[in-house]
Amino acid sequence: MTNASGKMSNRIDQLEQAMDQYLATLQAPSKLKEAMRYSLDAGGKRIRPLLTLAFKEYFTGEVVTTDIDVAACIEMIHTYSLIHDDLPEMDNDDLRRGKPTNHKVFGQAMAVLAGDGLLTTAFERLTTISLAPAVIVELTHKLALAAGAQGMVGGQVGDILGEQKQLTLAELQMVHEGKTGALLQYACEAGAILAAQPPTVKEIVAHFGLNFGLAFQIYDDIQDVVSTTAKMGKKVHKDQAHNKNTYPGLLGLAGAQEHLTKMVAICRSDLLQLEQIMGQEPSTLNEFLEYFKR
Amino acid sequence: MTNASGKMSNRIDQLEQAMDQYLATLQAPSKLKEAMRYSLDAGGKRIRPLLTLAFKEYFTGEVVTTDIDVAACIEMIHTYSLIHDDLPEMDNDDLRRGKPTNHKVFGQAMAVLAGDGLLTTAFERLTTISLAPAVIVELTHKLALAAGAQGMVGGQVGDILGEQKQLTLAELQMVHEGKTGALLQYACEAGAILAAQPPTVKEIVAHFGLNFGLAFQIYDDIQDVVSTTAKMGKKVHKDQAHNKNTYPGLLGLAGAQEHLTKMVAICRSDLLQLEQIMGQEPSTLNEFLEYFKR
Repeated sequence: MTNASGKMSNRIDQLEQAMDQYLATLQAPSKLKEAMRYSLDAGGKRIRPLLTLAFKEYFTGEVVTTDIDVAACIEMIHTYSLIHDDLPEMDNDDLRRGKPTNHKVFGQAMAVLAGDGLLTTAFERLTTISLAPAVIVELTHKLALAAGAQGMVGGQVGDILGEQKQLTLAELQMVHEGKTGALLQYACEAGAILAAQPPTVKEIVAHFGLNFGLAFQIYDDIQDVVSTTAKMGKKVHKDQAHNKNTYPGLLGLAGAQEHLTKMVAICRSDLLQLEQIMGQEPSTLNEFLEYFKR
Repeated sequence: MTNASGKMSNRIDQLEQAMDQYLATLQAPSKLKEAMRYSLDAGGKRIRPLLTLAFKEYFTGEVVTTDIDVAACIEMIHTYSLIHDDLPEMDNDDLRRGKPTNHKVFGQAMAVLAGDGLLTTAFERLTTISLAPAVIVELTHKLALAAGAQGMVGGQVGDILGEQKQLTLAELQMVHEGKTGALLQYACEAGAILAAQPPTVKEIVAHFGLNFGLAFQIYDDIQDVVSTTAKMGKKVHKDQAHNKNTYPGLLGLAGAQEHLTKMVAICRSDLLQLEQIMGQEPSTLNEFLEYFKR
């Protein structure tokens, strides 16, 4: 294990501990907590919280407990969205991260409620973290924006409505800005907020996050075409089966790959801008872009 | 129309305007906004936000725009919970407030998302209201607590799990403290928070709200037995059909009525305590208790 990957896996442990510990304190029916924990513990790359921590560290040179707690809230929001997106009435997915989806294990009603529980718990937790009230308000407001009708919920609606028609590239991008971009943008921005960066810096970081999100979605679309279920831990070729609008569907595989390269270049240019402002290379952040080369 | 009821209906207009106006500003798919608006506009008694405003007015003698905005967020949370509770996988209700339920009109996927949209929009709105950051943090944290796994979500889980067994009175009360009590408690407490009352006063107000919520639930259970669909605007006798644990089911109709009287007496005693502290009769708040006499 390299130093960098050892650090990452250590951070993932800290995040998972933070989520588990907070869940354990909830005075709630044990079945509900079990369903919430099931999806939180199902693994995944934890890219969103890792980005928060990477940006925070880049700006301040350290990661402290309150940063981990904020990052854990972001992962709870992400997990809620996966549970609801997998529901039979939505994408009807049986498999997620190589395990049966929440509703397959706990039933549909409990899956809706486990999602609702994670969504509200994220806000509950975020508003008890020991930070200045104005910082909490900024973090909470932007999280609600990213998660809500103008972000993830709106994107999911666009995705579902889009199944009935052919979207243009601009429309597809708008759907994915909501569905995937909004929370990745927030995750990055949260790192800059925790590091008390000025608006100009926050803007560059947010721009990076949004385009990272789009790259992430294009990469996922491409994997859905070229990968196998065993490798992905979820069903593949399901976009076509669901009549989903995708980048490969719209641009062809080579066109989608080209578009991905373009998004990654935008991300690199944002990091270069940061380097010029901060006078320090964001090497860990550059490493995140390696993800798209696999 | 009496002065008091004229004032109430004026406040309901203000609330509905506040919700509609905020919804109109959202950059979200129009179908989603339509589904969110459908349930927000479906009427209802608006008891939660009216309680917030009544407490605020009792303590300060006035209701200002920011109070209306906070109250509107509470109604958004209440409305989200109705949409999710009515889903086929939950209580499977076709009728609510005399109109087809959200999923009957917009489909099940959109109903889940309209609920998610209202839940997140409440937090998004609450964190932009022009109040001191520390007040926003307190309001947001307690709202998340009331809505979440330790409140409404937990209560709904208890309600669903309870369908498979006979609950004791203590267990039934715990379910309803979450399902109905938590948000009514919050609605009352929010009025005291907006009026910057000390912790002792907030506690009495919260105690009133919780017991008002229990009274509300018992009253609803009784109506489900004795009323008609036309009068209630939703299906009656459905508790028995769903094998729900209810107060009349557990205590008989007379026993439930007696329990309701007890809860209302607790509420009256809380209001009397307030009167002694504040040196002023909470006459509007006393009027809310008339609801249980109808």
